[in-house]
This record gives sequence, structure tokens and C-alpha cells, in this order.
Amino acid sequence: MTGTAIDRSLLGPLERRGFDVRVKHPRSEDDLARELRGAVAYLHGGEEKATEKVLRSAGHSLKVIAFLGVGYENFVDVATARALGIVVTHTPGAATDSVAIFTVQQIMNANTRNAAHLGGRHPAWRSAEDLPRELSACEIGIVGLGAIGTRVAELLRAFGIKVSYFSRTRKPEIEAALGISYLSLPELAARSDVLVVMVPESDETKGLIDFGVLGRLRKGAILVNTARPAVVDPHDLHKSMKEAHVGAAVFDGFYDENSEIANILVGDFGDRLLVTGHIASHTREAMGRMVSRAVASIEDVLTGGAIDRSPGIRA
Amino acid sequence: MTGTAIDRSLLGPLERRGFDVRVKHPRSEDDLARELRGAVAYLHGGEEKATEKVLRSAGHSLKVIAFLGVGYENFVDVATARALGIVVTHTPGAATDSVAIFTVQQIMNANTRNAAHLGGRHPAWRSAEDLPRELSACEIGIVGLGAIGTRVAELLRAFGIKVSYFSRTRKPEIEAALGISYLSLPELAARSDVLVVMVPESDETKGLIDFGVLGRLRKGAILVNTARPAVVDPHDLHKSMKEAHVGAAVFDGFYDENSEIANILVGDFGDRLLVTGHIASHTREAMGRMVSRAVASIEDVLTGGAIDRSPGIRA
Repeated sequence: MTGTAIDRSLLGPLERRGFDVRVKHPRSEDDLARELRGAVAYLHGGEEKATEKVLRSAGHSLKVIAFLGVGYENFVDVATARALGIVVTHTPGAATDSVAIFTVQQIMNANTRNAAHLGGRHPAWRSAEDLPRELSACEIGIVGLGAIGTRVAELLRAFGIKVSYFSRTRKPEIEAALGISYLSLPELAARSDVLVVMVPESDETKGLIDFGVLGRLRKGAILVNTARPAVVDPHDLHKSMKEAHVGAAVFDGFYDENSEIANILVGDFGDRLLVTGHIASHTREAMGRMVSRAVASIEDVLTGGAIDRSPGIRA
Repeated sequence: MTGTAIDRSLLGPLERRGFDVRVKHPRSEDDLARELRGAVAYLHGGEEKATEKVLRSAGHSLKVIAFLGVGYENFVDVATARALGIVVTHTPGAATDSVAIFTVQQIMNANTRNAAHLGGRHPAWRSAEDLPRELSACEIGIVGLGAIGTRVAELLRAFGIKVSYFSRTRKPEIEAALGISYLSLPELAARSDVLVVMVPESDETKGLIDFGVLGRLRKGAILVNTARPAVVDPHDLHKSMKEAHVGAAVFDGFYDENSEIANILVGDFGDRLLVTGHIASHTREAMGRMVSRAVASIEDVLTGGAIDRSPGIRA
């Protein structure tokens, strides 16, 4: 298994079954391939890439890859895994509350430009225009009303914030329960002081948030993307920040650091970007649930047990 | 008037009555005294100290000091004002939501040690112990259940957090409405992962949060004080951070920067202190309400009008 900050005691069920559990921190593709040789299960900590080369070199021993988190498509070559008969599991839902709370936190931080004020002795606002908004006076739009988007909506409603959403499918029960409204994506953008992107990355959602959306935002709006970065088109984001439609942008996990556009964004608007390294789901409790589920799915596959115990199993 | 980030258009009512409104940024006691000479009203922006010397040098023209915010006792020599027949007003309640939301935000930031992760590409947690807690799994204690403390409790309850409180007077209706419990201060500390201090500074509350309280906190607890710093005894805080009862401490406005203990705290535990410069109430909306109320109370005093229009008037 890979990954940092994992409570080893949660691996007990595998050790008690007599499996030899090894925690590794591979530094390269070759390193990972070497470590996986002869392994029957691979608990993927969510950082490295399990490429075709890695999976093929693991040989026929590997039966299951248990991915810690969701969105494993970016980290595991699923086609190769399928071709080799390797089961890939993930842990959906384990971190809903952690991610939702982190998202609300970063909305607040982008609004107050908190980092700029740490350690200060007096407010650094230079004009009334420069002041943050009172969050409860803002309108917030959410793109994607899955489990996390719904929880974000619920938390923001508790703050007295007016919340609208766009989603592929309308969800009238949630609208009624939370007092939120459905809008088309362009309408949603036009009414948002803060736009929160909460959709998984797929061929359909890649670049979904383009200038057609960002250019409609209220001037100086805050864009929050604690999902995958690619859902927001980076070139259109640059244009929108240049034209001040987007005042600040929040990411938890950023575009490929070697890409030209990532460097241009950081170079031009670094002080308006609030970027963290994919930490939204990293709480003790969420990590514990994720590891426990991953361990359970490994047990299931290796013992041929009750595979349906884990909702993440994809044979 | 003093203060930064004030929307001048809100001063219109005074200008329309023919008053000569001047916005000043005094750099010293002498500077402030000079600016106040001949003034009839002083809108105090909340940063400088209106000492006895300053008030006496203003002469008999000065009729009202309208303080922007609450807790003016630290900024205005009230005894001298009273002796000189100067009315001192403040703006209670204008920033309740802004301060409450900022407090919740800083609870989250202290929990995730957010500043340490800005710009990072991968989580920096070194062990499972090092991970933040999932906030909804924490127990939070609130000391002081005034308007802001109550709003903080309400917001935290919306996150599914177990909340208890201590207050001079029990508030059974709020307990029932929000589902929170009353505890004595030592009991509250003993059960808190996060302790939020929400009491005004007074002779009675100065140093209220001492080692008797802090030493009972769960190891590594977060102390949050977005009220006045002096409510927490700084020497006992140092001892508690040294013994790890307090894992991290949040202040919005810190102890006198020239004091020895402030420097020792920052020197020894700077990386576990999350300090901002009294910005909790600084949102456009709250500032607008505060300035409007201050302007109204100045109008009232100068025109001999309906003084009871402002709840903050203290004749």
C-alpha cells in the first residue's frame, strides 16, 4: 500500500488473515512497478499513477487495486486493469462531510483573503470596495448537486445564504428541503457572487466551466473548485481573471505543475489564487473510513467473500 | 472621523446637514488631539486611543464620540468623556453575523492548519495523528452566549457539531432551540476539542480563561478568541501551549505587541498561533451598518433629536 498519514492499526484485518502488509512510498514509476511485483493487492493512497507499464509488470499475482478516495480514473489505468482482470475499488461517500466543510471554509477564506491578514495587527483593507462581503449577504451558485454539492448547499443555507444550483438532473426534493433554486448554467453564473464547482471529471465535464460561464459571473466573483481542476478550462480562467470577472479562484489540487498555463496562471494571478494540495478529504475520520473500506474490499476480493459489502466494487 | 475602508457616501446625511466632515488618519496622540480641536463630533474608527489628554485638548466643542464597533472602553477614556459631558455611542449588533462567520472560519482554519498548506501540491500530513479532525466529529464549547456566541452555536450546530456552553446566566430557550447544553466552565473545558471565547472584556472577565480552564482541555485542543485578547491569561496560555493542552490558538487582535509575553508567545509558538488584526467585523455590509448607525447617533446628539433611535447611546 501507498499513501501518507494512514493509521496502520486499520490494516489489522489484513494482517490477521496472514497477509504481509507493506507500506511504501514509491518515488517513480519504476519504483512502484518494483514494489508491486508479486503483490496480490494494492491499496492506492491517491498520489501516484498506476500506469499500464506498472500494472503489466506486477504480473498475474495482482487481483485488486483499492483506491483511497474517488476519481481513480486519473490514477489507475482502468483499461489495463480490466484487461488483466484486476478489480478496482474506491471509497465513495467516505469523505463527503470533510470535503463539504473544507469547501465552505475556502469560500470564506477567499472572501476575506485570509492568508493576507495572518499575523497582522490592523486590517489591511484600503477602501470600502476592498472589504470582503458578509457571506450571508452573498448569492452562491453550486454546479453539481451530488452528495458533496448537496451538503455544501445545506451548510451554506444554514448561514442564511441564498443558494442556487445547476445539475444535469433537477432534484426537486432537495430544492424543497433546502430552499434552493434550479437555474441553467449561464443563469446561475450571472447571479453568483461565488460559484462552487462540484462535478466529477469526465469527458462530459472537462472544460464545462469555460468563458461562457465565467464571463457571466458578477465582477470580482469567487470561483471555488474543490473537485478536479480540469472541469474549469484554465485558459478561459486566465481570461476571466484578467477581465476581473473572477476576482479570486480556489483550487484543492491544481493543473499539472509542468503545464505552461498553470505557470502563467500562478505568475499572473498568484495572489488571487488560493491553492491547496488536494487536502479536502484529509481528516482523521474520513481517512479512517476510507482505509477501512479499502481494507474490506481487499478482503472481499482476496477471499472471494461478500463482494457487495463495499459499494465501490467494480468487477 | 478616523478609520480606513469607510464608504464616504454613508457620511452624506452629515454633509447634507452642512457639517464639515473630515476623514483623518492620525499617527500619534498629538496628531489626534490637533485634528479634534474645534470638532463637534468624532467618529472613532476603532484603532487609535482617545486618551484624557486628547479629549481635554479637544475643548468644549466636542459633543459626541461615535465609536465604530463595540468595546470602546479600550479606545476611549470614558471617565474623561463623562466629566466633559461628551456622549459616547457604539454600534452593538451591527457585525454579529460577520464576527460569527469569521469565528467559524478560523475554527476550521486552525483545525486544518490551512496556512501551512497554501500553494502545496500534496498533503503535508506526516502521520494519521497529524491529520485534522472532521469538524462534525468534534465537540465545541462556547464561553459566553451573547448575540455572537448564540449565532456561532447555531452555525456550528448546522455542521452537526456537538456544542455546549458556559455563560454567566443560563439560557434555557436557546438550549432548547439549538440543542446545546449548559456546563460549568471547568466541565466545558474538559469536554472541548475546540473552546470558543465569546465574552466582552471587563474587570470580571479579564483572565477568565486561565490555567484552571486551559489545563482541563483535551490534549491538542484549539482555543479560539475572536473577542478581546485579555479574556485569556497570556501566561497561562503559554503554559498550556507548552504542555500541549492547547494545540493551536486563534486570536483576532493580539496582546500588546510591546509586551514581553506577546513576544514570548509568538517566539515559542508562532506556528501554532493564527492571529489576524481585528478583522472579524470588517465586511462591507457590517461596516456599512456600523457607519450608518454612528452617523445617525451623531445627528441625534448634534440636533438634539430622537436620541433613543440608536440603541448604543449612552448619555
